[in-house]
Amino acid sequence: MTSGDCPLCALDAAEALWANDQCFVISAEIMGVGTICRVIWREHVQEMSELDAAAQGAFMSVVFGVEAVLRALARPTKMNVASLGNLVPHLHWHVIPRYRDDAYFPDAIWAPARRKALARPVEDAVLRIALEAGLRG
Amino acid sequence: MTSGDCPLCALDAAEALWANDQCFVISAEIMGVGTICRVIWREHVQEMSELDAAAQGAFMSVVFGVEAVLRALARPTKMNVASLGNLVPHLHWHVIPRYRDDAYFPDAIWAPARRKALARPVEDAVLRIALEAGLRG
Repeated sequence: MTSGDCPLCALDAAEALWANDQCFVISAEIMGVGTICRVIWREHVQEMSELDAAAQGAFMSVVFGVEAVLRALARPTKMNVASLGNLVPHLHWHVIPRYRDDAYFPDAIWAPARRKALARPVEDAVLRIALEAGLRG
Repeated sequence: MTSGDCPLCALDAAEALWANDQCFVISAEIMGVGTICRVIWREHVQEMSELDAAAQGAFMSVVFGVEAVLRALARPTKMNVASLGNLVPHLHWHVIPRYRDDAYFPDAIWAPARRKALARPVEDAVLRIALEAGLRG
């Protein structure tokens, strides 16, 4: 996959919940878990170790800032943070609040579901305000 | 779980493949995938956003250094990097070389297996030398 056919390159960062010059934040609903955030690097790069130390640091500081915002808003049992990209090899981090009674706990959200779970949506409007307050532009 | 009954607190960093004052690196064999590394924070802390910026940066610089070493040694299709800790809420990162023909690709390694896969072991002796060369103490 090149940047020409990459679905993350095709996203419009201007519509993101939060953005800076290097990366942007979107939300997604995961059935049985709730609202998660994804932090997407703007440039089409495959691996974190292809970035220099300054870029790695800038990217992870946003990822962990998003983690802090989601912890404050969603009060999870545990946060999960993962960069996989097997299908879409363009750097993006999943920042996932987990709950003792979510559909997969204590397994990863990619495991088979263990139970039905309540929806736990966090509104984009709330996320926007919290990200703006919690992250440095 | 407190540090008193935490299996990661019970590990002896002196037996790790690589260690500094803050974290250490061990290997594990994942059936159907191969040799992965885990980077474990020494202190019993649950979430990355509980660490200050300097500690986050120091930890991730080791995690991405391990990623670079595994990319060079194992020539994977893609690297996966994840901090879950639902069962053992003591900060540790899984650094996982993935292959187009591993048992789970393109799913996460926590999904059901799609196929049988070759073993792809990387010897600890080789890892030790590569980590020593690739990481700053």
